[in-house]
Amino acid sequence: MRHRVDGLFQQTAHSPSFFELSRRMGDHGGQLVDFCIPCNPYFPTPDMFDMLARNLEAVLKFYPSDADTIAGQLARVLGINPATIAMSNGSTELITWMDHLWVRESIAIPIPTFGRWTDQPMETGKRVDMFPLQEENGFALDIDAYLRFIHARGSRVAVLCNPNNPDGGYLPRREILRFMDELSHLDLVVIDESFIDFVEVERNPSVGAEAAIRPNVVVLKSLGKNFGLHGIRFGYLVANPGLAGKMRRTLPKWNLNSLAETVVFMLAEHGEAYRESLRLLARDRYTMGMELALLPELTVYASQANFLLVKLAPGLNGTELRDHLISRHRVFIRECGNKLGMSNQFLRLVVRPEQDVARLVEGIREYTHPQWHQQQQQEASIRSLPVRNIS
Amino acid sequence: MRHRVDGLFQQTAHSPSFFELSRRMGDHGGQLVDFCIPCNPYFPTPDMFDMLARNLEAVLKFYPSDADTIAGQLARVLGINPATIAMSNGSTELITWMDHLWVRESIAIPIPTFGRWTDQPMETGKRVDMFPLQEENGFALDIDAYLRFIHARGSRVAVLCNPNNPDGGYLPRREILRFMDELSHLDLVVIDESFIDFVEVERNPSVGAEAAIRPNVVVLKSLGKNFGLHGIRFGYLVANPGLAGKMRRTLPKWNLNSLAETVVFMLAEHGEAYRESLRLLARDRYTMGMELALLPELTVYASQANFLLVKLAPGLNGTELRDHLISRHRVFIRECGNKLGMSNQFLRLVVRPEQDVARLVEGIREYTHPQWHQQQQQEASIRSLPVRNIS
Repeated sequence: MRHRVDGLFQQTAHSPSFFELSRRMGDHGGQLVDFCIPCNPYFPTPDMFDMLARNLEAVLKFYPSDADTIAGQLARVLGINPATIAMSNGSTELITWMDHLWVRESIAIPIPTFGRWTDQPMETGKRVDMFPLQEENGFALDIDAYLRFIHARGSRVAVLCNPNNPDGGYLPRREILRFMDELSHLDLVVIDESFIDFVEVERNPSVGAEAAIRPNVVVLKSLGKNFGLHGIRFGYLVANPGLAGKMRRTLPKWNLNSLAETVVFMLAEHGEAYRESLRLLARDRYTMGMELALLPELTVYASQANFLLVKLAPGLNGTELRDHLISRHRVFIRECGNKLGMSNQFLRLVVRPEQDVARLVEGIREYTHPQWHQQQQQEASIRSLPVRNIS
Repeated sequence: MRHRVDGLFQQTAHSPSFFELSRRMGDHGGQLVDFCIPCNPYFPTPDMFDMLARNLEAVLKFYPSDADTIAGQLARVLGINPATIAMSNGSTELITWMDHLWVRESIAIPIPTFGRWTDQPMETGKRVDMFPLQEENGFALDIDAYLRFIHARGSRVAVLCNPNNPDGGYLPRREILRFMDELSHLDLVVIDESFIDFVEVERNPSVGAEAAIRPNVVVLKSLGKNFGLHGIRFGYLVANPGLAGKMRRTLPKWNLNSLAETVVFMLAEHGEAYRESLRLLARDRYTMGMELALLPELTVYASQANFLLVKLAPGLNGTELRDHLISRHRVFIRECGNKLGMSNQFLRLVVRPEQDVARLVEGIREYTHPQWHQQQQQEASIRSLPVRNIS
């Protein structure tokens, strides 16, 4: 088993998908706890999944509506002018088409970041101006330094992810507005708000409404990430009607699947459940951050997203820890050795409920202090009769 | 109700989606019998839907694998060289990107056809050379006449759909090979085989393997249409490794959703069920064709797809018939008034099981002979006690 899983981790600049890993691990796959994919464990609710499962046959057998129809409903639910949005098959589809339509020669992006922001424009021969976030500043983005960098490099497009991935660092809304205003001469400014619904420190953190009244700003949103439904693939952009309309006309006419359509039409009635899920997730983020910070081998960075970036103490190896956790604890984590601007000392850990975090912490403790851990387990087994699950 | 449904039919060059119609019709939507969307009523099997529904939460919560991983599995199942395929989010995504990559100035296409083949290149400013199929020939495509047309117009790209949509007309494999060979000087030749799995008159009708060894041929396949899973959105192309690789590298890296991935991995075990569904569908196509041909007001065209094109007798109006069928019989049909090269005298009727066809035939009879129909119903009500469904 070890051998087959190892091969998987080596083949790609991204982690293998949960499905790919589950298939390789055979029947054991179902028991995995996943700290790799940023799900929302509280949304959709079990009721919503039941409803989707009951209607699955009808949902899958019929054509979905075209993107404009579904986007119209999304605009109604979110209270956005439909002329200012374009819906896509995941935010990757928008990144791909923005690169084709609007990135002509160069693009600036702080790193570390989501891999597509560097790889997509490089694959089509553009110059990618990478602005390295500094570990000694906790990977916080210094807007003024980034503006100077963009100016010095002469980048024609600038991207800013808020919160950033993989560290979860967040900049206040007024800073983003200042950034946009300073760059009104660029071909395009993209604010990637894929994780902004998880922000707690500010009430209305999105700059979508401001993008819609500016000539060169696009705000990107990922519904899959917000709703914890990565398998569905849906996202959208907000921009002025000229830019949004151009994207709508360029995207494939039918690019959304029927589950995306069904979920968008369910949202109107489940807004409160969604907001409650965000409150629970913010609580878990706080608890998980505290638990991990108690481990002396970890440095935890401040995050407003649904994941936490942590750094292992010198001498500890993230790749080995990952392999230890998956083979001995069935805990699946991501080490950032394959991310530009990071190393395998860094882990991106998705926020999960308390009992899953306990399993992760136990796994890390066993890896860092195997003897102490063994002793703890022996003491526990003396205190209680062994119980065996027969089923 | 009538009013709201009417508005829907007027707004678009395509039929409204089943979902859009169901939403507008409120609770009555569930009782619709749909002759508009070419489903496969026998596939996936109820077992397969149960399995998908049971695993829905895991399927939707995790990221799907990237397109190359899923395409690799599809290639294994179908026994195709993976270097010769590219998987897409429905065939519409491939049509859109082929237009951007390979259609530079002009494209030839027989009409009537699938709307995207004419609309997509027109939307991006290409010249569309439309070759009208002749009603007096039963809309059969004369390859030599089409070749002369392409030559005379100087079209740089040529498309041929086999079987054709909406008439289901099929050309033998050797004719398609001859067509490809005559056009080796074009920028691109596309054979759209979206409906080819339904062909019965020839054993191995696809020319995919021949496309893979030619310099300028792409064969398009629609898994959604074959498997009756339009909501999932998945398709692929077969071409030589140069063309297929170019498309793979251009498409968004993650363009497939998790249900597409799950179904592709289920296929290996359900091949026999799929082939059986095709046999049943061919049987239904024969029966339905015979039933409809018994109506003197209809002309039925020979089809090898999972739909039948029919023409109403002079004086009958397809739009009125459609409105009659949906409001009085909850039968949803498509009239072809919004299709280039057709008129609202034509209906495209999807092949459905016998009992659904009986409901359609009754609806058409009531529309064409209201008095005779009323009399039949009175006689039937005298012969039997009225039975009322209480639930």
